[in-house]
Amino acid sequence: MSDLDKDIRRLLDTYASAVLKKDVRTFMHLYDPEVQVFDAWGIWCHHGAPAWQLAVEGWFTSLGSEQVKVTFEDVKHWPGKDVSSVCAIVCYAGLSATGEELRRMHNRITWVLRTSGHVARIVHEHTSAPLGFEDMKAILQRPASR
Amino acid sequence: MSDLDKDIRRLLDTYASAVLKKDVRTFMHLYDPEVQVFDAWGIWCHHGAPAWQLAVEGWFTSLGSEQVKVTFEDVKHWPGKDVSSVCAIVCYAGLSATGEELRRMHNRITWVLRTSGHVARIVHEHTSAPLGFEDMKAILQRPASR
Repeated sequence: MSDLDKDIRRLLDTYASAVLKKDVRTFMHLYDPEVQVFDAWGIWCHHGAPAWQLAVEGWFTSLGSEQVKVTFEDVKHWPGKDVSSVCAIVCYAGLSATGEELRRMHNRITWVLRTSGHVARIVHEHTSAPLGFEDMKAILQRPASR
Repeated sequence: MSDLDKDIRRLLDTYASAVLKKDVRTFMHLYDPEVQVFDAWGIWCHHGAPAWQLAVEGWFTSLGSEQVKVTFEDVKHWPGKDVSSVCAIVCYAGLSATGEELRRMHNRITWVLRTSGHVARIVHEHTSAPLGFEDMKAILQRPASR
């Protein structure tokens, strides 16, 4: 990640810190009003920021006294003049109120960013886990070797 | 899809016709040599065109005498000068040797395209199906109403 653009590093850091703090306002500030989200869970597509905010509020509320620590691995960046993209493996670790790790889950994440007025915001997000061929169930732990 | 860029329409058409014909060479011509693929099935990431080609050859071979008809719905396009992106709901319909539809499956698909020497190729693909909250199984049929 050493050659990552400063803006991308800031995006990753802001995403992680907003999730840790359950700060909906800072989190949603990363997204374009017209964002289309293909989330890993339940819904085919969240159309627009208000729909996505409802889902995020539901996620943060469901955590109760727990917190989620986000880390990124294998970050790739395709920089562009007006549209750019980032993909990564993201790890969501559930922490107890005393900071103990309770569980962890990996996802693949893709962001498409559009720059408007010098600010790049997420216009498209796609998160998922690969599916097992046999049982069609999500594989939520990535092998350590990859 | 009426305002879709001609290049995007051509990309969708070429993808669909290459899958129908199981034409690996035409299919792989859509991809950049350094493509990163987050495929819906089995593997966290296919790194580079040779790894992706192996997976595609396996897919086409597994079909035997069947064919797959691809259609796209709800296509969104974020055009950019050097990097652009497309997302859609994609339907893969399995056809018998006599052209009868045997089954169908929906996925979400995201493409990131990078233009180099006037040619835009896929540098990143992400396909998935949403997961049920209860059983963590893939939901492979999109409700008709959405």
